[in-house]
Amino acid sequence: MGTTIPRTVAVVGTGVIGRSWIRVFARAGCPTRVYDIDPARRDRALDWARASASSDEDLGFVEAGGAAFESGNVESCGSLEEALDGCSWVQESGPETLATKRALYAELDAAAPDAAILASSTSGHDMTEIARDLEGADRCVVAHPVNPPHVIPVVEVLPGRATRPDVVEEALRFLKGVGQSPVEMNRYLPGFLLNRLQAALLREAIALVESAAASVDAIDTVVRDGLGLRWALLGPFGTGHTNADGGAGEYYRVYGDAYRELWDDLAGSDPLSDGVVDRIHAGMEALYGPEAVAALTDWRDRSVRRVRDLKAIDPPPGAAVTDP
Amino acid sequence: MGTTIPRTVAVVGTGVIGRSWIRVFARAGCPTRVYDIDPARRDRALDWARASASSDEDLGFVEAGGAAFESGNVESCGSLEEALDGCSWVQESGPETLATKRALYAELDAAAPDAAILASSTSGHDMTEIARDLEGADRCVVAHPVNPPHVIPVVEVLPGRATRPDVVEEALRFLKGVGQSPVEMNRYLPGFLLNRLQAALLREAIALVESAAASVDAIDTVVRDGLGLRWALLGPFGTGHTNADGGAGEYYRVYGDAYRELWDDLAGSDPLSDGVVDRIHAGMEALYGPEAVAALTDWRDRSVRRVRDLKAIDPPPGAAVTDP
Repeated sequence: MGTTIPRTVAVVGTGVIGRSWIRVFARAGCPTRVYDIDPARRDRALDWARASASSDEDLGFVEAGGAAFESGNVESCGSLEEALDGCSWVQESGPETLATKRALYAELDAAAPDAAILASSTSGHDMTEIARDLEGADRCVVAHPVNPPHVIPVVEVLPGRATRPDVVEEALRFLKGVGQSPVEMNRYLPGFLLNRLQAALLREAIALVESAAASVDAIDTVVRDGLGLRWALLGPFGTGHTNADGGAGEYYRVYGDAYRELWDDLAGSDPLSDGVVDRIHAGMEALYGPEAVAALTDWRDRSVRRVRDLKAIDPPPGAAVTDP
Repeated sequence: MGTTIPRTVAVVGTGVIGRSWIRVFARAGCPTRVYDIDPARRDRALDWARASASSDEDLGFVEAGGAAFESGNVESCGSLEEALDGCSWVQESGPETLATKRALYAELDAAAPDAAILASSTSGHDMTEIARDLEGADRCVVAHPVNPPHVIPVVEVLPGRATRPDVVEEALRFLKGVGQSPVEMNRYLPGFLLNRLQAALLREAIALVESAAASVDAIDTVVRDGLGLRWALLGPFGTGHTNADGGAGEYYRVYGDAYRELWDDLAGSDPLSDGVVDRIHAGMEALYGPEAVAALTDWRDRSVRRVRDLKAIDPPPGAAVTDP
């Protein structure tokens, strides 16, 4: 352990998440080997990654990393063995079924160098289950990114029961080194951190639409032009810390009872019906147009990176914040 | 109704919210009369607003509005009657006790011109209750901002039972005209929209810290460098709309059952204890330093405005989004 960046990385599985990981590792200067059981999908992913790097260079993002493709630092591999040869980090982004994951990890554990860390992009599985029968279970760790990881820096890192503490530490260090914002979760819970927090907010958001308290656009506006602006800079606890002169401690002492009353009043049941899904979709089409998903996603990605640039240029005072 | 901007505005009550409202109306070109029952607080608010406008000009925010102070467009008033004379919008930001609000609204309704809208910054009260005994209950409306309104544009607009629909419409139009992002809520619910959504996320966030699943910093990072980046641009429904090729409808059909499982697993009880509050406060001090609240708040405010500028320069495709 303790290997410094750049590690040699094997990207295994090249769907929407895997292809974005190619960009993360390539632009950080890591020799990046790319494998997929479907060679056509691997080729499409490499084409996408090259075009995406080039597009980001056109947009002025200097760390776009297109040079890695020209210099041969990104390598298309025809077999898993070839991809794993000499690597010290495996980023697995295969199908999200436990049986498939377990079969794949048996192969990875057999063929990857002993010192390599095996990291899974899974959003749903417990590494304890994935690695249950593996000799190398102690080097397996969840490293769950947010889609797409070359744009959104958070990666949730959590151990299985057998994972060695130094593997978790090294995963956090390496992922930070390649420009991500890794966070440590101490144990498995369904949805990890991010999807639990997202689900908590969405349940109330959907319930407010379902009960006709407000429109889809009103809910999105409240978050987009209100809550989200503060949260993108400070997170939920940092937001409270700036909402009382005495900081977070004072905030919760003053507003604790108001929160308790609200918690008793929030939606607790499942608000998701076919009807409300249709209303949400119609609300989105009214706002952004009927065919806008791809263009909206491109806009989101370039805008997120500009927001990150703002934070990098003028970081919060005194902060040991993680986003570079 | 139907008066075009600029209206003449009376800002009544000049605490932290009221003083920020001075800036909103002054920079939009509205003649702005400022009154507080405590003349010293009124003077401090005017000094703060002038200094804040000047500081924003130094930071390059062109719409800072400092000229309004020099041109006499912002007027300090010695009596409520003087402030209300000739105004067509009253922004009330008085104490948050129902009895005080009701007494104040009786005065406002008696003294404000018949055509004036009486808008309350209340974050907790139902206008039905505030205006219950008023002859002019039909012109009273809640216009709840997010602190501070000259930085965060969302304003929640909601009627009491007696409020005329054209008053709500005009409130939305006027607030949008002065550069805010008003959203309409169709009926009163505790916490309105924003504080309900915030409470939903915070309950889970606090519970994750309380159960030692993750650190305070990990939770803030997940939102700050993950969820919040998407939400600040797209809101929760817009985020889902970009997370499936077929948009929001496909997203909820594909992930609906996963959300249902998470909803069953989320914290449902009160997670707020003295112990967890101490941990949150200590986490904030470790991250930002022990004396950082004021400096952090300044950083938040200038950064929020830069994020808003980014969105204004490169708005989402095809969008009728509300933030200017």
